[in-house]
Amino acid sequence: MKIALAQENYIVGDFEHNIEKIINAITVAKAKGACLVVFSELTVCGYSPHDLLYRNDFIEKCLMGVEQIAKHCIGISAVIGAPSYNPEPTGKPLFNSAYLLSDGEIKSVHHKSLLSTYDIFDEHRYFEPNHNFTLANLNGKRIAITICEDLWDNQQTSVGMRQNKVSPMAELKKQNPDLVINIAASPFSYDTDSHRLSAFSELAKGLGIPIISVNQVGANTDLIFNGDSMALNANGVLVKRLNSFVEDTQVVDTETDSFIDAKNQFNPNDYIAQIHDALVLGIRDYFQKSGFTKATLGLSGGLDSAVTLALAQKALGSQNLRVLLLPSHFSSQHSIDDAVALADNLNIKYDIINIKDSFDTINQGLNPVFGDLPSDLTEENIQARIRGVMLMALSNKLGHLLLNTSNKSEAAVGYGTLYGDMCGALAVLGDVYKSDVFKLAYYINREVEIIPTNTIVKPPSAELRPEQKDSDSLPDYPILDGILREYIENQKSADEIIELGFDAEVVTKIIRLVNISEHKRFQSPPTLRVSSKAFGLGRRIPLVARL
Amino acid sequence: MKIALAQENYIVGDFEHNIEKIINAITVAKAKGACLVVFSELTVCGYSPHDLLYRNDFIEKCLMGVEQIAKHCIGISAVIGAPSYNPEPTGKPLFNSAYLLSDGEIKSVHHKSLLSTYDIFDEHRYFEPNHNFTLANLNGKRIAITICEDLWDNQQTSVGMRQNKVSPMAELKKQNPDLVINIAASPFSYDTDSHRLSAFSELAKGLGIPIISVNQVGANTDLIFNGDSMALNANGVLVKRLNSFVEDTQVVDTETDSFIDAKNQFNPNDYIAQIHDALVLGIRDYFQKSGFTKATLGLSGGLDSAVTLALAQKALGSQNLRVLLLPSHFSSQHSIDDAVALADNLNIKYDIINIKDSFDTINQGLNPVFGDLPSDLTEENIQARIRGVMLMALSNKLGHLLLNTSNKSEAAVGYGTLYGDMCGALAVLGDVYKSDVFKLAYYINREVEIIPTNTIVKPPSAELRPEQKDSDSLPDYPILDGILREYIENQKSADEIIELGFDAEVVTKIIRLVNISEHKRFQSPPTLRVSSKAFGLGRRIPLVARL
Repeated sequence: MKIALAQENYIVGDFEHNIEKIINAITVAKAKGACLVVFSELTVCGYSPHDLLYRNDFIEKCLMGVEQIAKHCIGISAVIGAPSYNPEPTGKPLFNSAYLLSDGEIKSVHHKSLLSTYDIFDEHRYFEPNHNFTLANLNGKRIAITICEDLWDNQQTSVGMRQNKVSPMAELKKQNPDLVINIAASPFSYDTDSHRLSAFSELAKGLGIPIISVNQVGANTDLIFNGDSMALNANGVLVKRLNSFVEDTQVVDTETDSFIDAKNQFNPNDYIAQIHDALVLGIRDYFQKSGFTKATLGLSGGLDSAVTLALAQKALGSQNLRVLLLPSHFSSQHSIDDAVALADNLNIKYDIINIKDSFDTINQGLNPVFGDLPSDLTEENIQARIRGVMLMALSNKLGHLLLNTSNKSEAAVGYGTLYGDMCGALAVLGDVYKSDVFKLAYYINREVEIIPTNTIVKPPSAELRPEQKDSDSLPDYPILDGILREYIENQKSADEIIELGFDAEVVTKIIRLVNISEHKRFQSPPTLRVSSKAFGLGRRIPLVARL
Repeated sequence: MKIALAQENYIVGDFEHNIEKIINAITVAKAKGACLVVFSELTVCGYSPHDLLYRNDFIEKCLMGVEQIAKHCIGISAVIGAPSYNPEPTGKPLFNSAYLLSDGEIKSVHHKSLLSTYDIFDEHRYFEPNHNFTLANLNGKRIAITICEDLWDNQQTSVGMRQNKVSPMAELKKQNPDLVINIAASPFSYDTDSHRLSAFSELAKGLGIPIISVNQVGANTDLIFNGDSMALNANGVLVKRLNSFVEDTQVVDTETDSFIDAKNQFNPNDYIAQIHDALVLGIRDYFQKSGFTKATLGLSGGLDSAVTLALAQKALGSQNLRVLLLPSHFSSQHSIDDAVALADNLNIKYDIINIKDSFDTINQGLNPVFGDLPSDLTEENIQARIRGVMLMALSNKLGHLLLNTSNKSEAAVGYGTLYGDMCGALAVLGDVYKSDVFKLAYYINREVEIIPTNTIVKPPSAELRPEQKDSDSLPDYPILDGILREYIENQKSADEIIELGFDAEVVTKIIRLVNISEHKRFQSPPTLRVSSKAFGLGRRIPLVARL
C-alpha cells in the first residue's frame, strides 16, 4: 500500500490557505501513485485553535472545509483532522476527529479518546472523549486511525508515568488491524523528543503491524512543531522519516519499503542544532503568519541580544532588521565595539543613541518626588525602561516588531525590568537557559565567527551600574541552570533538589527568586517554546499565593 | 440538625493561615451548638491552586492539613475540601474531594465528578473525574455530599446549555438522601449570579430535601469569590443566605428554620453595587495576600483613573495611596484641576510632574533615526510610556504597587499603549465596560460628590494630541459596549451581531480592532474578573491566527 505522509505548515483559522495546501498535497500524492495521503491533527483549522473552537462560525468553516477537501479525494483517499459535532445531547459539544475521505465523500470519522490536558494542552476544555472504537476499511485493509496520544498508553504526571484509564490502541487491536495511522500535533521539545522514535518502534513491534505517523510542522505563536513524521514497519524498524522543521511530503510503500532510513535520526548531542532550527522557524512563522516582515532589537554587546540577532537574521534576512545600540554612562566601550562588530558581520543597519540625556531629564522630573533618596534599583530600571521607550518608538514609527532578548535563566529569577528589557512582541530565547545560549553562540559561529568571541567569553553583565556582573548576585550559570531545570522542568521540591547535591542556601535563594517573579513573567511577551516546560500557558502558577 | 455554614477567605498555599482559620470556625460552630460545619471547595489549599497541584510537597501539605483538622472534630463534624490521591494506577493522580471529618478522623471521602474545564477553570488538567456515588452517614442522616457543579445537570457551552454526561445528583438521589451538602468555589460574575438562587431553589424542590451550599469568599489574583452561601429547605425556600463579599459563619437548623431571609437577596438592578464591592475586595485581597499595603496610579483627570482611585481608597485607605499627575503640553487645565479636586476630596497625597521635558529629550535622542518623519501614533505612545516610566519609578523607589486604570472597552479595542498606560500590577477596571464605569462613578458619588462631576460629564479623551476625543474614532460607548458584549461574553459572530440590529460597518470595524489587539492583551496586567468572560486565562485566543 503506497501511503503519502503530508507534513505541512498551517495557519490557525486561515481556512483558504490551509485547504489549498491540503488539496495540493492530495494532488501531488496522487501523482506519485499513493492510494492514501495522511495529514496531521486538526489539519483544516491548524493546531491549536484554542477558544476559536467556541465559535460556531469557526466550526462551520471547519466542516465545510472537510466537505470541500473530500470532493478532491477521487482515485485517492485521505485522512485529515478537524473537529466534529458530538451528536449526543450530553457532554462537550465537539470531538477532536480524524476523517477518512474517499470517493469524494466522508467514509468514516474517528474521534480522539485521550484528550491532551496538561502543559500547553487544554483539549478537555473543548472536546468530549471518545468511547467507541472501530477500524476504518480501505482497499480491503483494516486500519486503526488514531489521533496523537491515543496511540500510547501512558502519560507523564506529577507522580511519574501513569497508565491512561482507557487504552484506545488495546481496544482497536482486538479488531485485528493491518495498519496504524496516527495523526498528531505534537510540539517540539528538546528534552523529550529523543524518546519518540523508540516509543513508536516498541509500539509497532508490540502490535506487529506498521505505523504511519504524521505530525504538524511550523510554529503557531509560542508552539513550534518539528514534524518528524515517520513510518515504521511491522518489526518496529524505521522505514521513512521526514525532514524536521520543514514541510515535507514523502511516499512510503508498506509492502515493499523495509530499509532503515537513518538520515535525520534524532541525535541527543545535536539538541543545540535542533533548538537553533526550532527558534529560526519560530521567528519566521511568527512574522510570516502575522503579516510582518521587519524586526528590531536593542543590541547591548552582550550574549543574549547577539544570539537573538543572529537567529533573527537567519529567519528574516539582514535587510529586514534594524537595531539600536543604546549605551548609557555605565556601558563599556567594548560592549559598543562588540555590538558594532556583530551588526557589521551580519550586515545589519544600526543606530547608536546614548540614553544619558533622557535618563538625566527623567530623573530631574522625578526629583521633587524622590528628593535626596539614594540611588537604587529604581535608577537601573529607568535605564532599561528608556531603552524600551526608544525601541518601541522605532517599532511604532517604522513597523519593525521588537524582539525580546531575555533568556530563560534570567526570566526564571526575575533578572529583567518589566516594561524595560522585558518588552517585545516575541521572546526568542525565553525558553533557553543561559548555558544553552552559550552553546547556541558557538553553534552559530561553527563555520565563521559571526558573534564576536569577546561577546561570548566576557563575564555576563547588565551594565546598569559600575562594574556590575551577573555573578555578583547569582551562582555560576551551570549551577543556576541545574537548579532551575530541577525546579521548573522536573517539578522537584527544594528538599529534593538539595538531595541531588546542590547547596541548600543557594537552592532556597533561587527558588525564592523564581517564586517572587511570577508577576513579571505574567506580563512577558509570548515565548518560543523549545522545552517540555516553558514559561507561559504551559505553566500556570497563581500570582497571589504562598509558594 | 444544626449546621454551620463557614464562608471563609483563604490564601492559596498558605496552609498555616488556612488551617488556623478552619479550626477557629470549627470551634465557633461547636460553641453555637452546630453538629456539622460545612466549608467550601479545596478549603485547605484555597481555590485555585493551579499548577501547585503538580507539586508533591503541596499535596502532602494538603493531606497533613486534613489530618490536623480532623483531630479538632470532636463533638462536631465537618465537611472540608482538599485534593486526594487517586488509588487506581490509571488516570490522573488526584481527585478534587470533600472530606467528612468526625470523631477526630476522616469518616468518608467524596470526589468531584463534573470537573469544571471552561473559562478560567482547568480541573481536568489535574483531577480524575469520580464515577462512584455513595452517601455519607452522619447522626442517622443520609447526606449527599457534592462539590460545586456536581449538584447541577447542565453546563453552558458554545452551542447553548447542554446536559452533562453523568448526573451525580441523579445517582445520589437513587440512594434516598435526607440532605444535600454542596461545597463550592464559584467566582462572582455580575451577569450570571442572579440565576443562582432560582437554580438552587428548583433543585431543592425537585429533590424534596434541603440544600446547604457553602461557597468560598475573597479574591485570589484575578478571581473574586462573593460567598453568597445559602441554605434552602425541602420546598426550595431560602432559609438562610450569608452576606456577600465578606467572611460570614452562620448556623441553620434544618428541622426548625423555615422562613425566607430575604436580606441580601441578589437584585439585578444592584449589579453596579455588586461590581463595586467585588472590585474593592479584589484590590484589598490582592494587596493583603501578597504582602503589600501601598498603591499608586497616574491621575489624568479622566473618568477611569478617578474611579480606580476611589475604589483603591476604599480598599486600602487614603494614607496608603500616593499618586502622580503627569500632564503634557496636550493636557487641559481642567484635567489637572479635576485630578487635584479628586485627590483633595479623598485626602490623597499627589505630585505633579510635567512630562514635556522628558518627551522633548527622548524625541531629540530619536531624531537621528527618525529625521523628518511626520509625528504620528509613535509620539502619542512615547507620552504614555514616559508616564509608565515615572509611575514605575515611584513604585520601585517607594514600594507602591501601580494600579492599572484601563477599562474593558479600551482593552477590547486596543486603545491603550503597551508599556505605557497598560502598565500596572493589577488592572482594576479591565473587566468593566466604559458604560459601567460611568455608573460606578455615580454610585461612588451616591451620597457625596467624590469624583468631580466634570470628570464624569466631559467627553472622554486620552489627551495625547490637540483636541483628541474618544468619539473621534470609536462609536458612542453604549453602542461599542453592546457590540463588545455580544462578541466577547456571548461569543456571537459578526453576522449574528449585525442581525441584532447593529450597523454592519461598525460591527466589522470593532471586531477587527478586538482581533488585532490580542497581542496587547497578552501582556496586560492580571485583571479583576467581574463578568462571565474577562480577558485573561478565561479567554484563550491564539495570537497568531486568521481571526
